[in-house]
Amino acid sequence: MSVNSFGRVFTFTTWGESHGPALGVTVDGCPPGVSLDEAFVQQFLDRRRPGTSKFTTQRQEPDQVRILSGLFEGKTTGTPIQLMIENTDQRSKDYGDIAQAFRPGHADIAYHLKYGIRDYRGGGRSSARETAARVAAGGVAQAALLALVPGLKITGYMVQMGALHLDRAKFDPSEIPNNPFFLPDATAVPAWEEYLNGIRKDQNSVGAAIEVLIQGCPPGLGAPVYGKLDTDLAAAMMSINAVKGVEIGEGMGAAALTGTENADEIRMGNDGPRFLSNHAGGILGGISTGQDIVLRFAVKPTSSILTPRRTINQKGEEIELITKGRHDPCVGIRAVPIAEAMTACVILDHLMLDRAQTGGVRGTIG
Amino acid sequence: MSVNSFGRVFTFTTWGESHGPALGVTVDGCPPGVSLDEAFVQQFLDRRRPGTSKFTTQRQEPDQVRILSGLFEGKTTGTPIQLMIENTDQRSKDYGDIAQAFRPGHADIAYHLKYGIRDYRGGGRSSARETAARVAAGGVAQAALLALVPGLKITGYMVQMGALHLDRAKFDPSEIPNNPFFLPDATAVPAWEEYLNGIRKDQNSVGAAIEVLIQGCPPGLGAPVYGKLDTDLAAAMMSINAVKGVEIGEGMGAAALTGTENADEIRMGNDGPRFLSNHAGGILGGISTGQDIVLRFAVKPTSSILTPRRTINQKGEEIELITKGRHDPCVGIRAVPIAEAMTACVILDHLMLDRAQTGGVRGTIG
Amino acid sequence: MSVNSFGRVFTFTTWGESHGPALGVTVDGCPPGVSLDEAFVQQFLDRRRPGTSKFTTQRQEPDQVRILSGLFEGKTTGTPIQLMIENTDQRSKDYGDIAQAFRPGHADIAYHLKYGIRDYRGGGRSSARETAARVAAGGVAQAALLALVPGLKITGYMVQMGALHLDRAKFDPSEIPNNPFFLPDATAVPAWEEYLNGIRKDQNSVGAAIEVLIQGCPPGLGAPVYGKLDTDLAAAMMSINAVKGVEIGEGMGAAALTGTENADEIRMGNDGPRFLSNHAGGILGGISTGQDIVLRFAVKPTSSILTPRRTINQKGEEIELITKGRHDPCVGIRAVPIAEAMTACVILDHLMLDRAQTGGVRGTIG
Amino acid sequence: MSVNSFGRVFTFTTWGESHGPALGVTVDGCPPGVSLDEAFVQQFLDRRRPGTSKFTTQRQEPDQVRILSGLFEGKTTGTPIQLMIENTDQRSKDYGDIAQAFRPGHADIAYHLKYGIRDYRGGGRSSARETAARVAAGGVAQAALLALVPGLKITGYMVQMGALHLDRAKFDPSEIPNNPFFLPDATAVPAWEEYLNGIRKDQNSVGAAIEVLIQGCPPGLGAPVYGKLDTDLAAAMMSINAVKGVEIGEGMGAAALTGTENADEIRMGNDGPRFLSNHAGGILGGISTGQDIVLRFAVKPTSSILTPRRTINQKGEEIELITKGRHDPCVGIRAVPIAEAMTACVILDHLMLDRAQTGGVRGTIG
Repeated sequence: MSVNSFGRVFTFTTWGESHGPALGVTVDGCPPGVSLDEAFVQQFLDRRRPGTSKFTTQRQEPDQVRILSGLFEGKTTGTPIQLMIENTDQRSKDYGDIAQAFRPGHADIAYHLKYGIRDYRGGGRSSARETAARVAAGGVAQAALLALVPGLKITGYMVQMGALHLDRAKFDPSEIPNNPFFLPDATAVPAWEEYLNGIRKDQNSVGAAIEVLIQGCPPGLGAPVYGKLDTDLAAAMMSINAVKGVEIGEGMGAAALTGTENADEIRMGNDGPRFLSNHAGGILGGISTGQDIVLRFAVKPTSSILTPRRTINQKGEEIELITKGRHDPCVGIRAVPIAEAMTACVILDHLMLDRAQTGGVRGTIG
Repeated sequence: MSVNSFGRVFTFTTWGESHGPALGVTVDGCPPGVSLDEAFVQQFLDRRRPGTSKFTTQRQEPDQVRILSGLFEGKTTGTPIQLMIENTDQRSKDYGDIAQAFRPGHADIAYHLKYGIRDYRGGGRSSARETAARVAAGGVAQAALLALVPGLKITGYMVQMGALHLDRAKFDPSEIPNNPFFLPDATAVPAWEEYLNGIRKDQNSVGAAIEVLIQGCPPGLGAPVYGKLDTDLAAAMMSINAVKGVEIGEGMGAAALTGTENADEIRMGNDGPRFLSNHAGGILGGISTGQDIVLRFAVKPTSSILTPRRTINQKGEEIELITKGRHDPCVGIRAVPIAEAMTACVILDHLMLDRAQTGGVRGTIG
Repeated sequence: MSVNSFGRVFTFTTWGESHGPALGVTVDGCPPGVSLDEAFVQQFLDRRRPGTSKFTTQRQEPDQVRILSGLFEGKTTGTPIQLMIENTDQRSKDYGDIAQAFRPGHADIAYHLKYGIRDYRGGGRSSARETAARVAAGGVAQAALLALVPGLKITGYMVQMGALHLDRAKFDPSEIPNNPFFLPDATAVPAWEEYLNGIRKDQNSVGAAIEVLIQGCPPGLGAPVYGKLDTDLAAAMMSINAVKGVEIGEGMGAAALTGTENADEIRMGNDGPRFLSNHAGGILGGISTGQDIVLRFAVKPTSSILTPRRTINQKGEEIELITKGRHDPCVGIRAVPIAEAMTACVILDHLMLDRAQTGGVRGTIG
Repeated sequence: MSVNSFGRVFTFTTWGESHGPALGVTVDGCPPGVSLDEAFVQQFLDRRRPGTSKFTTQRQEPDQVRILSGLFEGKTTGTPIQLMIENTDQRSKDYGDIAQAFRPGHADIAYHLKYGIRDYRGGGRSSARETAARVAAGGVAQAALLALVPGLKITGYMVQMGALHLDRAKFDPSEIPNNPFFLPDATAVPAWEEYLNGIRKDQNSVGAAIEVLIQGCPPGLGAPVYGKLDTDLAAAMMSINAVKGVEIGEGMGAAALTGTENADEIRMGNDGPRFLSNHAGGILGGISTGQDIVLRFAVKPTSSILTPRRTINQKGEEIELITKGRHDPCVGIRAVPIAEAMTACVILDHLMLDRAQTGGVRGTIG
């Protein structure tokens, strides 16, 4: 199986480099008859797009998606859907001086050691531009989910940026689209702005943590024991550039809990089981229970900073390097729509995989 | 691809339930000519085996492995290796009273909703007994790694149990085999014993965090962008029962760091690049750099506890449940050899996958 | 993906050698709730079993299947089903003299060149005993198909053995179980017996062609363009030992036809499209049309013959070899139940794969 | 795994419809450092291209390939290679009258039944235009094989067209590029031309058989038992539009042979084993032996013919249909470069897969 592919029955394969003519994604396995057009996918790309605030890179990539196949008269046909984004703002000359250098924290040295050759322009394949292709694939998944599971809702937001944490008492998801941080708390926005401005002025960058909330997910998704829903979600998040940790429910905090604290007790509600808490994050034994699914992940600070760092180049010479260019001071911000896209793909994939095995029939209670 | 399979070219497929006649694993893709016998695999199973201390379940599973195929005159032949473990200590009657009940924190309700049918005895397929099969697969992987990468060393140990944390200043890996906690600090063992005894007397259980250290891993392993080494390691850990979070290098802590703190600067050493720190955990852009690889994961507290918990049964009746039986007060302890096994499988798989694409040839520096 | 696995969502992985302690198959992805027991699977194994007539090897393998997992109270649970067959009649000493020799027409030399090591006893992994495991997997598939597509019928039979061909004018499928050749023509049986007796007395062997007829297959199965139903059927047949050719519908004969001859014209029948002929063999563009599916394959003559043949051994010495032992004069005979088993697996796999993508909803006509 | 993907470690995924804006292929897993450019791939596309003789469709598709990713300074980087071909000569109006009709012998009805929606223009996804993408993938494979196995040679040619057969006594591969039939016998070309002219004038079409000869293939390729080299070659050929049969070595003819006839005896040659015949077609037990590999397949006659045929439309009305447009009287001709391309992909894939497991080390003889 292609290592640039993701998914089991709803699959996508991304291709393209930061400074090549284009990048894109081939989506395969999409159900037929799903309403889809470029505008629908574009809205997801626009949320991820660089240059939309002073806190994201000032590269002006319009990231305009074209759908080249798999659609007929506004509906998916069940055949592969090719989504292509042309690269228009490539300043290759920006990168000339680091062609032979290994930028600390970047994949440069790892790609060189593995392949012996690499497209050093903008990080080539290891550039976060690859994630535009994922977001396009996520747009297709969202369209299919809209048709198949109308009540499903996937919401990503930031819960931490460096020293700042979301105050959960003020959690208001309606505020997420109203600020450049995907922050579900309007009152905290000024402090977050000031903090990130300070980071940027220091020629520095900062890490972040993002949470994804999945509401309305049907029970029964997830395929034990190596296709668990949480396993696939964890893989999906960890595959995003710069992600260093993934949590489901209590996450790493589960190590500190006792069994009496952690058990999610169950009562009967009007329309089925009602859990009294959600330490599990909506997944038991790798299978969704119908509760909200909650996952979090951490993104390391942008490795490209203007503060000089010690490193080496391909000749083995020791050098000092400033990574110029137009870089996000907090790449975690743009990880929000990327994570939503990956989540949509995983949920759709498991919905289809479950349909294959069980026909979508559920065990009954009562 | 089978959802009970793991791996890309070195693959394994586990099968079996807690209370069936046997469980096992089919390992496929192992290099030929590797020295292997049952005793070699058994040593790994013995480390995971229940009943070895008062801190693990008192079930007396000898977990004796038999190799049924794929070996000839003490060497692997390149054909599938079947490793089977017979279940000998099945007290099915222990579980009779919970046949229709959904134990909180367990997969019971999720399996019921998905499949409409489940082997309730001991958790059936969702039982942690499945991990014995993984450890057997890991034994095969360890044998192959011994032949292919003699310098490689995979070491798992506990770093947290509930309120207790490993004191890193006292880290001494030689102590790991000398105590029931796989704890690399002999001085802390009495306190950990006292703590866990208290938990058990309270009819409670507790979570844990485990770290895995991979030393001597060659650079170049990992296949961007969806077959990243850290992605596959995260999936491997998250697939283990009760795991709720996975971290590489700084992990979730990366969210709090700045770019200047997080950059791993590089100098030239005598035999190649020398990194001045290891925030990345040995992996950049999904590819190993030759540094130590460091990962951690959290295990939730055992859900089977003697303290009564509220739940429902298949009829939809609200009940109170005490999960009797012989259960570990901290399942995280036995996760150590399981995590080592999964790690060995991932490393071997990527070593072989890299060999497929690059022939194992590395880019040169200097 | 394991090279000893077959299938996309309904998958199976076989393991075991001719002279090891056991062989078997792990079936994964079976729908839950399917009635299944050992007796149901055994009936398929009994049809393939050696020693049932003088025209098959006189080895007395009872081929008794045991189901070790995936069943609960007589139904499948959706978890992996392990089916094991112990090897009981292993006369390893029979093979001692050919340990280092490469039997002409056998895989001996190829395995040696590839792996550098091989279990030479009875052909090891390349032995046709592996097909017992496939037949067991096919039994599981048949049980699931019985539940999911009650009208489906898969019938294999011989159409050629050496110089003898089935007279299609006398085709009577009810006769297939009544003779040792799976021949749908009772009147021809004496001639086939005499012919094969002659072959055996000449210390020779002979090839065969088998046809498989699939009746009642729903339309819409098959996933273009690399998961076509005919592609997967062809792969399934070609994976059977000694198979050298596969045909769908007109098969190789299509090369001689013109477009006017080959077109299967369509009229409306009472319950949908009615094709006036079936040159296509029931598959168009890789997708079933609802017509009967017809496939054929050729099996080469048994390579193990008592007539001396020239060959070499591992030392590179030129030798003459008689392959003693108990061998079928026409291995094609036993290929009939094997082909039915593979066919059942492919049909079930595509039924489930289609259900994943389309939900099993069909386009309407009229 | 994507059903529009092919391969295990060297994989490709094709996308695109006959009348969409473009079609293409994503190649993943290519070894890094392979010299490659558009001109190299174009030469293979030019051999398949329509409009090159009066015996192929007169559509003027320039089939100009663009490589959009995976290359840097003329070499592959090990990342996905996207090859795109824009569709320039789309006369959609040609197809308007058959929008709702099911052309006999075409996939129209099967796609409709499966997906409930289809791009009817030019057959949409089921059009043979998809094969242009395969040929592009094959070009990449050929470039890699040139680097990895310099002595390997893959040669396709026609051996039958309707009533005409290649006279093997006159086999001269140097003549293949000199005639529009890929016919290795210059003396037969006039008769083939006359024959096909007659077919065309009769508003008819005709089937064909193609042979592929692989010379210089290393031994040890192929992975038993479901990843056999012949299994994968058979799947590759059967996935090509209109193919109805596949043969390895003796193929269907093996059914008529006896064991003494069929055994390929072995002697020692100067540089290894020397087979005295090649009934097996170069593959034993699914693994290449180092002999020439020989495979054949049959292509049915073009279903699009000007002779009226009876059929139905989506409304269930019975109609008569003439398939106008510009169609090849013998689609088998253009299957030659397609088959070579698929063969190159399979061989490279297995070379890499073997390298993963065995490191490419071979067992020794003598």
